[in-house]
Amino acid sequence: MSWVAILMGSESDWPTMRGCADVLADLDVGYEVRVTSAHRTPVATAEYVADALSRDCGVFVCGAGMAAHLAGAVAAQTVRPVIGVPIASGPLSGFDALLSTVQMPSGIPVATVAVGGAKNAGYLAAQIIAAGDAALSGRLGDDRETNRQGVARQNASVQEDLAGDSG
Amino acid sequence: MSWVAILMGSESDWPTMRGCADVLADLDVGYEVRVTSAHRTPVATAEYVADALSRDCGVFVCGAGMAAHLAGAVAAQTVRPVIGVPIASGPLSGFDALLSTVQMPSGIPVATVAVGGAKNAGYLAAQIIAAGDAALSGRLGDDRETNRQGVARQNASVQEDLAGDSG
Amino acid sequence: MSWVAILMGSESDWPTMRGCADVLADLDVGYEVRVTSAHRTPVATAEYVADALSRDCGVFVCGAGMAAHLAGAVAAQTVRPVIGVPIASGPLSGFDALLSTVQMPSGIPVATVAVGGAKNAGYLAAQIIAAGDAALSGRLGDDRETNRQGVARQNASVQEDLAGDSG
Amino acid sequence: MSWVAILMGSESDWPTMRGCADVLADLDVGYEVRVTSAHRTPVATAEYVADALSRDCGVFVCGAGMAAHLAGAVAAQTVRPVIGVPIASGPLSGFDALLSTVQMPSGIPVATVAVGGAKNAGYLAAQIIAAGDAALSGRLGDDRETNRQGVARQNASVQEDLAGDSG
Amino acid sequence: MSWVAILMGSESDWPTMRGCADVLADLDVGYEVRVTSAHRTPVATAEYVADALSRDCGVFVCGAGMAAHLAGAVAAQTVRPVIGVPIASGPLSGFDALLSTVQMPSGIPVATVAVGGAKNAGYLAAQIIAAGDAALSGRLGDDRETNRQGVARQNASVQEDLAGDSG
Amino acid sequence: MSWVAILMGSESDWPTMRGCADVLADLDVGYEVRVTSAHRTPVATAEYVADALSRDCGVFVCGAGMAAHLAGAVAAQTVRPVIGVPIASGPLSGFDALLSTVQMPSGIPVATVAVGGAKNAGYLAAQIIAAGDAALSGRLGDDRETNRQGVARQNASVQEDLAGDSG
Amino acid sequence: MSWVAILMGSESDWPTMRGCADVLADLDVGYEVRVTSAHRTPVATAEYVADALSRDCGVFVCGAGMAAHLAGAVAAQTVRPVIGVPIASGPLSGFDALLSTVQMPSGIPVATVAVGGAKNAGYLAAQIIAAGDAALSGRLGDDRETNRQGVARQNASVQEDLAGDSG
Amino acid sequence: MSWVAILMGSESDWPTMRGCADVLADLDVGYEVRVTSAHRTPVATAEYVADALSRDCGVFVCGAGMAAHLAGAVAAQTVRPVIGVPIASGPLSGFDALLSTVQMPSGIPVATVAVGGAKNAGYLAAQIIAAGDAALSGRLGDDRETNRQGVARQNASVQEDLAGDSG
Repeated sequence: MSWVAILMGSESDWPTMRGCADVLADLDVGYEVRVTSAHRTPVATAEYVADALSRDCGVFVCGAGMAAHLAGAVAAQTVRPVIGVPIASGPLSGFDALLSTVQMPSGIPVATVAVGGAKNAGYLAAQIIAAGDAALSGRLGDDRETNRQGVARQNASVQEDLAGDSG
Repeated sequence: MSWVAILMGSESDWPTMRGCADVLADLDVGYEVRVTSAHRTPVATAEYVADALSRDCGVFVCGAGMAAHLAGAVAAQTVRPVIGVPIASGPLSGFDALLSTVQMPSGIPVATVAVGGAKNAGYLAAQIIAAGDAALSGRLGDDRETNRQGVARQNASVQEDLAGDSG
Repeated sequence: MSWVAILMGSESDWPTMRGCADVLADLDVGYEVRVTSAHRTPVATAEYVADALSRDCGVFVCGAGMAAHLAGAVAAQTVRPVIGVPIASGPLSGFDALLSTVQMPSGIPVATVAVGGAKNAGYLAAQIIAAGDAALSGRLGDDRETNRQGVARQNASVQEDLAGDSG
Repeated sequence: MSWVAILMGSESDWPTMRGCADVLADLDVGYEVRVTSAHRTPVATAEYVADALSRDCGVFVCGAGMAAHLAGAVAAQTVRPVIGVPIASGPLSGFDALLSTVQMPSGIPVATVAVGGAKNAGYLAAQIIAAGDAALSGRLGDDRETNRQGVARQNASVQEDLAGDSG
Repeated sequence: MSWVAILMGSESDWPTMRGCADVLADLDVGYEVRVTSAHRTPVATAEYVADALSRDCGVFVCGAGMAAHLAGAVAAQTVRPVIGVPIASGPLSGFDALLSTVQMPSGIPVATVAVGGAKNAGYLAAQIIAAGDAALSGRLGDDRETNRQGVARQNASVQEDLAGDSG
Repeated sequence: MSWVAILMGSESDWPTMRGCADVLADLDVGYEVRVTSAHRTPVATAEYVADALSRDCGVFVCGAGMAAHLAGAVAAQTVRPVIGVPIASGPLSGFDALLSTVQMPSGIPVATVAVGGAKNAGYLAAQIIAAGDAALSGRLGDDRETNRQGVARQNASVQEDLAGDSG
Repeated sequence: MSWVAILMGSESDWPTMRGCADVLADLDVGYEVRVTSAHRTPVATAEYVADALSRDCGVFVCGAGMAAHLAGAVAAQTVRPVIGVPIASGPLSGFDALLSTVQMPSGIPVATVAVGGAKNAGYLAAQIIAAGDAALSGRLGDDRETNRQGVARQNASVQEDLAGDSG
Repeated sequence: MSWVAILMGSESDWPTMRGCADVLADLDVGYEVRVTSAHRTPVATAEYVADALSRDCGVFVCGAGMAAHLAGAVAAQTVRPVIGVPIASGPLSGFDALLSTVQMPSGIPVATVAVGGAKNAGYLAAQIIAAGDAALSGRLGDDRETNRQGVARQNASVQEDLAGDSG
């Protein structure tokens, strides 16, 4: 099975990006994590991407804030899917990171998820890797079922709350 | 080889979404196109998605404007990758479609591209399908090379323009 | 008398949406509350809406955050009025939920209230149900009168504060 | 059957607001149209609202641009449902009208539709009036069916276009 | 000398609007304060404005949040200058109040100050009333001088801080 | 009677700012017009303001686009009222000019009107000058009456349009 | 004297970026122009930057639209000043390019000018190069004087227009 | 060696702007700090700029919030490079300061850094002054190397964190 490279521009992105790692671990998808910056360590970033590609990395997930260029810089170097996670750092609430990540020019796509949506980056990476892997597809389906049950449990909790009000 | 379902909420999205179809055709990736709406034909949309899944559709590309729910509605029904193309219709310049498409809740990702970025949706879909298809990966690599040469040609054209100025 | 279905996408919306339930309770309008998600439980959502319609639900109130599709998904399934409450969750302060809720395509309206405006969703639902119910109309009028007196009391409180300053 | 008052702040809003009148005419719902301004003719506006209420107006639809106060001013005067249509006039693309219309304080709701969404205001008004009017509900249901068929026709048109490309 | 009416839509605006009263008190300009709402007490608002005009009120200052209509409603009723103070309440940070206050239609101006700029509303009101009142103009000039000295004191404080760093 | 100085940063603002001059001419208020720039001719701007003050200018109206500093620069030099007109030039639709004009720091107010609201700047300037000038107040009141009649005429025009539809 | 490298991501940026070249030519500052893309030709971009540095390039000016990464990518490779010109391409009016250019992380600055502000990029580059070049400083001062006279001419033109009105 | 003038509109900007001073101190670049306001002390600001220029100040760094005019006012007075630091004060999160700083008219550039980007203003100022100063260029290069090592250390820290999870 292929694996996922999780990159982030700064250690301060790790509390957010850990959500991606956790989802992949739960789904039993292999991954590596690297702090590497499009601006501060561009050469190391390029070297890591080349190395990961040589080891058959299937998907890159890149989290960054502000003028978030990491996903675009990686996407410029590979035709493997690159997922961008805009991170809300600084006063502009992640609007800057969202637009810097999603508004890529024609020919070099970045698959962008919600601001702070590291978990969904994990799900999306797993969906991409699941092509031809029935077992992983099954685990993704199971997760949806768990999700459904979670909503049902939340509903039950609210009903109890309501019953308590009128009890 | 797997194939791509290109959905859009309205015929008025077709001039934009045709860019996705053209990219897939150039890359020799199979695709189907459907006008189907999350709001006006939700049942038909669900039926089409179920049918496409039964025929091993590998990626869904969904273009919609304003409160763009089509990608999210499709994503709710499958664990296959869903790509959202926010379309700039109406007075808010596509900001509404961008936020409606990208800000998905945890567990149900939509891989969002730029406002109007239908071509990149085609490239991203091809990248996803290319896993394990060396020939398609090769064609994607060739396209990058063509892209590079296009930039070089654009540079030459600007140099000519400059030479003309001072000639 | 008809009744109101209050839906929300997550239990985390309940502290906000409780404002809607409270207003309806104060106005003696019947209501049900359900946690159900357009994305995580689309089938259960559709089943609940169908069931509610069979039991003559008069108005649906739907609260959701981020790419808030719940109101639109319900509106796609009924010609009864659907009220959307955009909820400010995540870093974008509810701008995402507002645009995802209000910018509906032609033919499928969602009556949108302010970001976090669950109480006003309750008032609006009651206004809709009050058609032909003079008693409820009267209670709505009484509430306005109470509101007026509340402003007068607030004014008195500020005057006291001012008098204290200069006393 | 009750009827709908369609108000707008300026004759320049009429090309947009006519969409509301057309929908109501198609659905056989009675309506009146008035140009009246919250700022330029506040007394005439209040007198018209009072008169309309005395003649059992069921719903007010108010279209206005920029600092759009018309819907709020009408809502302040009645407990009947008031629908606001933000109109994109001036350089801010309707963002000003949207926020001025939807962000109403607690107790005085305005049911807001999309920027320029006059047609949806007509549908929403009809949905509100349809309570207890099975025939109108039926016509609303028929309109949805027509809408569905329109999407199917749009799909057929795109298929023809595609066939022509490859023919 | 003429005087200033300070209106606000809610007691919760008072901590902000007190800044306006304080400035006027410091400048020895007469003022009245009222909590009165464009939406919850429109009749009382209109009555107060008429009464204030009969008592030769020279300027109205109106503070309100969200869909801030108070300044516009007052401006619709008088040709005396009306100053609007957008207040940042709710999740949209005052963008809603700013646009609802400043974007008035032609013929009915509202002199808008910064979001939360109640003090500047006080200065502006005093500037308007100072026409032909040399003493008040003098006090306004003195305040500017105080302001200048405040900047000089702030500069001295920063220099001390710097000296401490290197000391 | 006092008079109004109309300043603008560029001749390209004149088509907008002429609206201010026209309103003042109609109301028989004296005015001067100057193209002068906060950034390109700061010394000339300061000299003009000093000269205008020496000739008892009562109000300054300043129109500028983009990082619109003209109104603030003038306000820094006088305690007479300064009105700012944000002008929509460049790609950001006047959002830049609005925020640059209205968000003034405490102590130095700028009375801001709508983006492109040069006419309202004229009305506001006249309202300020009208203090103690009953004749000008009367003309302002007459203008409101004309405005009212204009709305009535617009209403009649729409009624004719409607009658023609059904005729 | 040092020289300026003018880079842009696409030939479509040339009509805007030519403004930079024109300013530098007028000021007699040497420059080169290259179309080179952070995403489509990252290696060629890096090679050009290295080559330019070896030839003592003093300032880089980089124009790009959408997720504008060119300036940041160049800044990551040099400690020479890099000026970014956000270009308004696509539906988001340059807000995307502005935030992608200006919101750089600590340690890697990009000197950002206005959206479309290519001329100012030229002036800023010349200001940087003018350190220790009294002649260039003089030419920059002369340009300011020309600018001043241009405002005076614009003022004269408006006065003629006004005189014509009343003539 | 030339030196840098660090100006700010208010002492409340000092905690942010100190980042600029710290960077310059670390790089051994001379600087002065002044609190001076474009609006509250325009004459003192102009006098300081003239004095600094007479003492061969090479770069001005200006931090200000809200309608941030300080950088523009300084830029209007010199052809030396002026760097603007938009500061996030008040409810609009620095969007106001960013647009007020960066959107300068043609001919008078301000080199704008990120909202709150005082450190980058220091780096940019040093880069400008480093022209022809090989030692300072070397220190800037060393800082980049330190930056690179910092990313590596952050990466190591995340790896430890991951190892701890699975240990």
